Amino acid sequence: MSAAGYFAIDRSEPGIWRATFSNPPINLLPPAAITELQAIITAAEADAFVRVMVFDSADSDFFIAHFDTAKAAEMSREPGWSGHSPWIDVVIRLSRSPVISIAKISGRTRGVGSEFVLACDMRFASRQRAILGQPEVGVGLPPGGGALEWLPRLVGRARALEIVLSGDDFRADVAERYGWINRALDDHALGPFVDDLARRLASFDRETLGEIKTLVNRVGVPDGDAIETSNRAFFDALARTAAQARRSQLAGMGYGERSDFELNFGRRLPDLQPGAAPVLSAARPT
Amino acid sequence: MSAAGYFAIDRSEPGIWRATFSNPPINLLPPAAITELQAIITAAEADAFVRVMVFDSADSDFFIAHFDTAKAAEMSREPGWSGHSPWIDVVIRLSRSPVISIAKISGRTRGVGSEFVLACDMRFASRQRAILGQPEVGVGLPPGGGALEWLPRLVGRARALEIVLSGDDFRADVAERYGWINRALDDHALGPFVDDLARRLASFDRETLGEIKTLVNRVGVPDGDAIETSNRAFFDALARTAAQARRSQLAGMGYGERSDFELNFGRRLPDLQPGAAPVLSAARPT
Amino acid sequence: MSAAGYFAIDRSEPGIWRATFSNPPINLLPPAAITELQAIITAAEADAFVRVMVFDSADSDFFIAHFDTAKAAEMSREPGWSGHSPWIDVVIRLSRSPVISIAKISGRTRGVGSEFVLACDMRFASRQRAILGQPEVGVGLPPGGGALEWLPRLVGRARALEIVLSGDDFRADVAERYGWINRALDDHALGPFVDDLARRLASFDRETLGEIKTLVNRVGVPDGDAIETSNRAFFDALARTAAQARRSQLAGMGYGERSDFELNFGRRLPDLQPGAAPVLSAARPT
Repeated sequence: MSAAGYFAIDRSEPGIWRATFSNPPINLLPPAAITELQAIITAAEADAFVRVMVFDSADSDFFIAHFDTAKAAEMSREPGWSGHSPWIDVVIRLSRSPVISIAKISGRTRGVGSEFVLACDMRFASRQRAILGQPEVGVGLPPGGGALEWLPRLVGRARALEIVLSGDDFRADVAERYGWINRALDDHALGPFVDDLARRLASFDRETLGEIKTLVNRVGVPDGDAIETSNRAFFDALARTAAQARRSQLAGMGYGERSDFELNFGRRLPDLQPGAAPVLSAARPT
Repeated sequence: MSAAGYFAIDRSEPGIWRATFSNPPINLLPPAAITELQAIITAAEADAFVRVMVFDSADSDFFIAHFDTAKAAEMSREPGWSGHSPWIDVVIRLSRSPVISIAKISGRTRGVGSEFVLACDMRFASRQRAILGQPEVGVGLPPGGGALEWLPRLVGRARALEIVLSGDDFRADVAERYGWINRALDDHALGPFVDDLARRLASFDRETLGEIKTLVNRVGVPDGDAIETSNRAFFDALARTAAQARRSQLAGMGYGERSDFELNFGRRLPDLQPGAAPVLSAARPT
Repeated sequence: MSAAGYFAIDRSEPGIWRATFSNPPINLLPPAAITELQAIITAAEADAFVRVMVFDSADSDFFIAHFDTAKAAEMSREPGWSGHSPWIDVVIRLSRSPVISIAKISGRTRGVGSEFVLACDMRFASRQRAILGQPEVGVGLPPGGGALEWLPRLVGRARALEIVLSGDDFRADVAERYGWINRALDDHALGPFVDDLARRLASFDRETLGEIKTLVNRVGVPDGDAIETSNRAFFDALARTAAQARRSQLAGMGYGERSDFELNFGRRLPDLQPGAAPVLSAARPT
């Protein structure tokens, strides 16, 4: 077991790396964890014995809460291996790597947390504990890290629109029905299921796994430039007055803390409406 | 509440238009209702406060029964805003509009009725009351208003073929499993679910909603020319002897009336076979 | 009823051919059966009364076990009607034919057996008896007959990767949830359901069925060249040492026989690992 930073890596089983994310109190994803993810992928690819990386979380309430916006200024602008900015580099590298990635999801994973599991090759979630969401719309932003590219391909346009326009929280059973995750499993069965799958993959040839993945990738995998388009829209929207007004409401609601707000972020989004309802009532024709 | 014609529009809640379709006895869709839909979309877009349009029906047995073929000659040929003929203009405008559209489906919606809900951004249906179908094949025609373009993208080729080649009636739970609709909900839960979703959308910024939708639309939305191809095939097939022979059988069966035939149109399609079975039995080698 | 070879064809109902595959002991698919499939498609298309071909199996434990690799040398290299090699010719012709194809699956269908049902227009499977799998990865090979092209389009990338990278056995209910098959049906209901559907299709016009299928085929159907790419990768991998080492382990395990191994092929794949675990344990850093 090594813990370079946010991810503790268990290499105790041949062919398998298990990376456990931990960043108390609610597993926000800071820029430094993105840099660390780039390094983990590089190291796993450099070790010819590694077939599969399993990502899980040390906090069963939060897989990855969302991006740590308070640390946004620390974000590296250095293009990664793929030529893209760090987050998009992580997405592109995970989806192209001969090392197969599996997300084992317990707790909430929203925003970039959802986009991380979407970038993994497969994802399995606890029926009792997992909640997925793309709440960006509620703070006046489009998702900018891959959700808009992965979701319509995986769940179809209508369900993708429901997810990203409602910003709501989705339980694992609905996420499974929609195709957002591979499967929802009862909490006690999730660990054994993913272990069995990881060991199967570890028993196969890395060259064959990589070749099959490359052939599958001819269909249904977004390119980095498409994600960059959403990423630019995200940063452009950050500067808009409407988004700033919504985001300013987050302060004092428990944002970034182990709070009712973070536990139910998707459900609570309509609370952020900056006085719009009365304004609308007054101004609109009846 | 205003009722310009076939659609009564309830504007009582800020940001939400609820358009209820009514055309007794079975909610056939006449050409004039298509013109009205074009006007409703134009008006909703012109009102900067409108975020979401919810479409439902005044008849819980029929959402939109199907096109009113008896009035086909009244169909305008005038190209709409999109440059396409009126029905395709409705499809294209709904799918590109910054105003989000939701179909709330109780009762049957077949043919152009299914194609209408497919053109809405999202669709939710009563588990007990909704039935979807594309029965065109049974009267010798290909679907011509978008089904052949939306369905393979949403439900995959094999299920799309099952839907459009069988022409059968599909209950909401199967339609949900296939991805034809977002979700099937118990009848008593459908209204509250759609209300909650519409109010969420109404609490967000129209600019953000529209921007996200535009980004999602890079994948999985058909263009007007593709639908025009099917539309021409539909009208070409109308002139074929086989289609005319099948359609001539509709008279006297309860077509267009509140009848067992219209309640079970999909199931009844094999009844329309114009004497084919005995001919086939005699002529084919054994 | 005629039995030209591996497929017994029942033409007793107008418009419907029922082709039952039989090759004891476990319904391996030999090269000669591929040639026979090409001839069946040609004959069905030449009979203007045929609307639908239903494929099933005489063995309720095995639909098509997998390719009969012992007879690989008998494989014709003669390009078929489509200009592609025989197997790919079958895939392309089934997917383009005006005659609609339905797979009625009881028992196991793996490897080329899964690729055969994927090439059919629709597929329905026994909830109690059907098992689908693409076990190629476990013997060091990529699937080479269409799975890598059909699956990401039908089930999405993440589930496609799970299927072809795990090589595992999948029960019908999971295959239905993923969209690999149209529906899982209780064993007693499978026959009546497919009979009803086939009779519906047989009651419609062949020209209309073919026209609708052609219009659907604008989206979601792979071209022959894409499948050829995977096919070449399959044959290239056959020559690799790793694949040969894995395949050499099959001898003596019950491969090709009515054995526990063939009944549970997908589950048993990790058994084929050629001494990799100890090597890995010794060589890899901890």
